[in-house]
Amino acid sequence: MSMAPQVTDGLLKGITILDLSRVLAGPFATMILANLGARVIKVEIPGTGDDSRAFGPFSNGKSLYYSAINCNKESIALNLKNAGDLAIFHKLAAKADVLVENYRPGTMEKLGLGWDVLHARYPRLVYGAASGFGDSGPFSQRAAYDIVVQGMGGIMSLTGYPDSPPARVGVSIGDMAAGLYLAIGINAALYRRTITGKGCKIDIAMLDCQVAILEDAITSYAKTGVIPGRLGTRHPTVAPFQAYKAKDGHFIIAAGNDHLFGLLTEVLGRPDLATDPRFKTNDLRHDNVDALQTEIEKALASRTVSDWIDALDAKGVPCSRINDIPHVMADPQVAARHMVVSVNDPVAGQIKVAGNPIKIVGMAEPTTFRPAPGLDADRSSILAEIAGESDE
Amino acid sequence: MSMAPQVTDGLLKGITILDLSRVLAGPFATMILANLGARVIKVEIPGTGDDSRAFGPFSNGKSLYYSAINCNKESIALNLKNAGDLAIFHKLAAKADVLVENYRPGTMEKLGLGWDVLHARYPRLVYGAASGFGDSGPFSQRAAYDIVVQGMGGIMSLTGYPDSPPARVGVSIGDMAAGLYLAIGINAALYRRTITGKGCKIDIAMLDCQVAILEDAITSYAKTGVIPGRLGTRHPTVAPFQAYKAKDGHFIIAAGNDHLFGLLTEVLGRPDLATDPRFKTNDLRHDNVDALQTEIEKALASRTVSDWIDALDAKGVPCSRINDIPHVMADPQVAARHMVVSVNDPVAGQIKVAGNPIKIVGMAEPTTFRPAPGLDADRSSILAEIAGESDE
Repeated sequence: MSMAPQVTDGLLKGITILDLSRVLAGPFATMILANLGARVIKVEIPGTGDDSRAFGPFSNGKSLYYSAINCNKESIALNLKNAGDLAIFHKLAAKADVLVENYRPGTMEKLGLGWDVLHARYPRLVYGAASGFGDSGPFSQRAAYDIVVQGMGGIMSLTGYPDSPPARVGVSIGDMAAGLYLAIGINAALYRRTITGKGCKIDIAMLDCQVAILEDAITSYAKTGVIPGRLGTRHPTVAPFQAYKAKDGHFIIAAGNDHLFGLLTEVLGRPDLATDPRFKTNDLRHDNVDALQTEIEKALASRTVSDWIDALDAKGVPCSRINDIPHVMADPQVAARHMVVSVNDPVAGQIKVAGNPIKIVGMAEPTTFRPAPGLDADRSSILAEIAGESDE
Repeated sequence: MSMAPQVTDGLLKGITILDLSRVLAGPFATMILANLGARVIKVEIPGTGDDSRAFGPFSNGKSLYYSAINCNKESIALNLKNAGDLAIFHKLAAKADVLVENYRPGTMEKLGLGWDVLHARYPRLVYGAASGFGDSGPFSQRAAYDIVVQGMGGIMSLTGYPDSPPARVGVSIGDMAAGLYLAIGINAALYRRTITGKGCKIDIAMLDCQVAILEDAITSYAKTGVIPGRLGTRHPTVAPFQAYKAKDGHFIIAAGNDHLFGLLTEVLGRPDLATDPRFKTNDLRHDNVDALQTEIEKALASRTVSDWIDALDAKGVPCSRINDIPHVMADPQVAARHMVVSVNDPVAGQIKVAGNPIKIVGMAEPTTFRPAPGLDADRSSILAEIAGESDE
């Protein structure tokens, strides 16, 4: 299509994505692709649109949740059961490079828009689908929610403290991991299309993606029989390498070798710990990790997190605050990397969204994003572009 | 290059990746690309190789951690400070499509292999870098560890229970999120190269990627001033939508509307809860979420998780076990989707690794993976291929 993308440059410049997806897994993938320069046209249900438009909190009635995930996209409302709207959809599909949807498997087929139909009609179209459980298997037709796949997929069994119940990862990693893998697959399919001339269908399941981010848990358990559990903030084999409590809160110390441990004990004013027979090597420190925590926190209790970070930084001992959101936004490194972007939203007002973490050397980044579109906001310009065109 | 990829088909068939990366962020990205059919040649430090080869647990002396992340790759050991090995590196770079590294920024420049040098010499080469803080900004030269960026990036402030200290996400999401974004960027750059004929450098920072997965936290906080906190397993606005305790453990109930809540109260044998003035609507249930948990757990205490899951499934109330790793591996959906793959490792023996979650419709999946390579295991075959070739 001839329309200018919302991000004016980028690796995916010239790519147009028809995005039928709602809420998070699909929209998160298309946000990443929009930030890479693709043009993303949200195709929404007339009247209500993307379900996340109803998610609070709101600013002047506009969902901040929706606004966070849908910058740099356009919107057209189409009822795909209506013949006129379906004709518009086909004209758009004929010109698009990618279609994204996150319906339950079978929904697109019921609309007459399944992969077989679309592939036959638009052989270059890449089709990216994300669902809870994917196109196959006994649970394929089940609805999934983020917390359901976090629970089924194992990550909750590893998150939290051993003496507390499992914790949910505090962001919707069930949806977002699926969105990330979907974006990888779509880009690989676009590359492949340059060789074969054909699109393909990518079938992403939220549950599969949870299994894919278990690091070594499956491999280690299957061979050793030791079931990995919850460790709070501790590292499975290195100590000290966790959160510790100071006078006014917790922060992280990551002293992964004897040299760094020695420096740490000096900063703490407890050089005796470095020669303590319980703590002489990493293996010993790991074996006596509770006693080590007690000794370290005894020393830390006298001063604030801020004081300790300054002192440890000065000696080169790796450490970090546990930033809350305001502190993340105030972080100088986050600012230097343009990871918080201001958006002038005509409804919500001035808002902030996360930036694009895929930095390309020598390619300027936009200093602002186009605000997340109102429902059907781009209908007239989109219709004007396709006026008189056929759907083949 | 002419060598056959380890995954014999896939969207990235024909792509060769020179992988200088170690431990997790880079190797996780190249694992994803290898599973998509790219040929990945690990370039390792002679003697020790990838640091993760020393990470336990071990099977017959081979790291299971390393084995989990490095299937479908080849290995050659090169000392890039040695002229002979450097010449081999250049012959490989001349033929590769992608180079991946996750050194601290500046390391490749010190080796004379910075982006400017490589781009001038190999203009088609895509260069993918992952580091803690990226090529720019005040922290660029700092070392980072997963727990450091999890702490700095805000996800820990959202994870865990409100009355406990923050929890680390129980997998290395700091590294793996960076690996996922790196893989997205590399594939987009490969696509872009088909248009421009030129490679580009992708500069991924672990911290940036943590900011990018905060969902709506930045947008919502910046507008409302409400600092998002830890919610255990609870949803910020929907109830009941969390983990609950039954007779023998916790499991998840996600009854997101009045209809599902009504069904839940019937299964619990507590239909009175549906008409209780505290619980009549989702907003009321959310306002009284502690009281709701007390009532639900009173009812759940009499029976096991297994009993309740059966009863709730029969009524169509969304619910899930909180699977530990053995239960993830035994899950019929995980099996049906080939998300646990057996590998016959000549050293470690029969092992299991996570499968590829990027499923392509109509493209057969390999039923096994090539085992993670021994250090320098593919030297002779790689040298035979490049014998007599120039590095231009």
